[in-house]
Amino acid sequence: MTAAMIETDAVIVGAGPVGLFQAFQLGLQDIHCHIIDALPHVGGQCVELYADKPIYDIPGIPVCTGRELVAQLQTQIQPFAPTFHLHQEVTEVTRLDDGRISVRTSAQQHFICKVLFIAAGVGAFQARKLSVEGAAELEGTHVHDRLGDASRFAGQDVVVMGGEESAVTAALKLTLEAPAPRSVTLMHRRDVFAADPVLLQAMRDAVASGKLQLQIGQPTALLSSAQHLHALQVATPDGQTIERPAQHVLAFLGLSPKLGPIAHWGLAMERKQLVVNTQNFATDMPGIFAVGDINTYAGKKKLILCGFHEATLAAFGAADIVHPTRKTLLQYTTTSTELHHRLGLV
Amino acid sequence: MTAAMIETDAVIVGAGPVGLFQAFQLGLQDIHCHIIDALPHVGGQCVELYADKPIYDIPGIPVCTGRELVAQLQTQIQPFAPTFHLHQEVTEVTRLDDGRISVRTSAQQHFICKVLFIAAGVGAFQARKLSVEGAAELEGTHVHDRLGDASRFAGQDVVVMGGEESAVTAALKLTLEAPAPRSVTLMHRRDVFAADPVLLQAMRDAVASGKLQLQIGQPTALLSSAQHLHALQVATPDGQTIERPAQHVLAFLGLSPKLGPIAHWGLAMERKQLVVNTQNFATDMPGIFAVGDINTYAGKKKLILCGFHEATLAAFGAADIVHPTRKTLLQYTTTSTELHHRLGLV
Repeated sequence: MTAAMIETDAVIVGAGPVGLFQAFQLGLQDIHCHIIDALPHVGGQCVELYADKPIYDIPGIPVCTGRELVAQLQTQIQPFAPTFHLHQEVTEVTRLDDGRISVRTSAQQHFICKVLFIAAGVGAFQARKLSVEGAAELEGTHVHDRLGDASRFAGQDVVVMGGEESAVTAALKLTLEAPAPRSVTLMHRRDVFAADPVLLQAMRDAVASGKLQLQIGQPTALLSSAQHLHALQVATPDGQTIERPAQHVLAFLGLSPKLGPIAHWGLAMERKQLVVNTQNFATDMPGIFAVGDINTYAGKKKLILCGFHEATLAAFGAADIVHPTRKTLLQYTTTSTELHHRLGLV
Repeated sequence: MTAAMIETDAVIVGAGPVGLFQAFQLGLQDIHCHIIDALPHVGGQCVELYADKPIYDIPGIPVCTGRELVAQLQTQIQPFAPTFHLHQEVTEVTRLDDGRISVRTSAQQHFICKVLFIAAGVGAFQARKLSVEGAAELEGTHVHDRLGDASRFAGQDVVVMGGEESAVTAALKLTLEAPAPRSVTLMHRRDVFAADPVLLQAMRDAVASGKLQLQIGQPTALLSSAQHLHALQVATPDGQTIERPAQHVLAFLGLSPKLGPIAHWGLAMERKQLVVNTQNFATDMPGIFAVGDINTYAGKKKLILCGFHEATLAAFGAADIVHPTRKTLLQYTTTSTELHHRLGLV
């Protein structure tokens, strides 16, 4: 299936708080935009990781959750009605002969735009890999980063690693499986787990009844023969090294940032960040701007409020490209009749 | 009277939104501060000029008034309890031998600090001057920018110029004066006045009863002989030029920005703005930062949200000076226990 080609002023990659505010600032500059995000929902990392956690440093908002901030931004950009294209990644960015930019996504969406904004946070996310001796060659067969079909562990010794809710939940599910694994062990470097109290109680009960084993310690090696895992070597807090039978390890070690296809677009980079100027946060490619956690410049701090500033100056930079014959003046939303019109107030 | 000398980490000049948020960011960096402002209240221009007017471009706040924004910022900085020194101007800034900065105010307050933040908006404000032929040489004798002692106008023809509350109030006061002026005229370029409805009604009543005359038009010249004003030349909306007897003109033309004593501190400037770098918004003098509308750099836009970003990076710059032995790391208010302590949450 090939979706229709969309010709538009601007495309924003990333629907996190900075991508959303980018749409607002573009709207003030009379620039319409489409927003692409890899996640199936708006809000990016702010909703993915901090949905219900408090943020204290958004200026003028003493406290809000990630979800609340995103909801407020969605209200703020309503007058400009950007079109969202969620659950798809950008797969290709090329320059057309007329200077415009062609953007294609994994959902076969195709855009032709005058300016492109990369507001993709730290890129995509991928599960952090278990990095101990012998892990790499067992990945996918004996070392896993998700539960998947639990029936494949029937009759086997399974160690679930991690201290977060994902690890606790997976370990509990395995104890309820039929046919059951031979043994299920929950392992973490210390006896502190971050999960819902109800889940924590269920986990402690399962340990007390012997359905679940608890191992405190750090993995030091995976012991295998002929590509078959048979044990996990563990350093315990009291300084001992022990071996635990295991044919499968489920490692829930959190998400680590991954730049994804952006790395292959040919933009100037520094330590996996896109290099921008501080005048309008343009990259070294004309018409391509980078805002928020994905960019870097002298003094850069990965803070949401800094991304808001970057998006604002980038919108001025974009206005010079999208409206080359207009003089881009600074106008105030409090006093400008023109901005009031754009905001739909009059 | 000489007030006690105050030794502190930081002094902020300017209690507008950016100055207030500067105190917040300094608090997160474990830096205590004092805030000086020329106005008798907190909030700066935002409260002085936009108290009840809507602002639409504060990120995450779809709409708020200037007063509401300032109130929210005051709540946000409460954990850090900065000390305010209002209704006083900075009169002197000097460098001590030990590298610290001495700051004195018009209220005989004396501070010794390690870092100084200039968040003084566009500086102080001064009354806008009447700029028509003949006005300059009559200033202070026949042309005034405030009412002052109204008895000096007894028996004379007075024209009050302006469309705001200050002009309406002054005109009404003059009609109540005893001994009274010979005539009082309120003049504005159009028959629309911005003032409290009660005052407007009183003004219309005074016009109806003949106590106050209303003249719509623009001043084109002041007619005087031997430094004595005798008439005001006015261009009326219907294209005529008339003369109105006047020995005194009171011009309430609003406030215009003025850099004030900051101009004499010897900092690098460009068109009356302080030149800063975009890494930490430091001026060319060590330990002195400039944030908000008073600074300039490539791409600068005089927007409150940009000032918030500037204040944040400036706080990081200040931390390197105030806490030279600590490594200044980026921490998040959502996750950092240390920041939770500083915010008084735990």
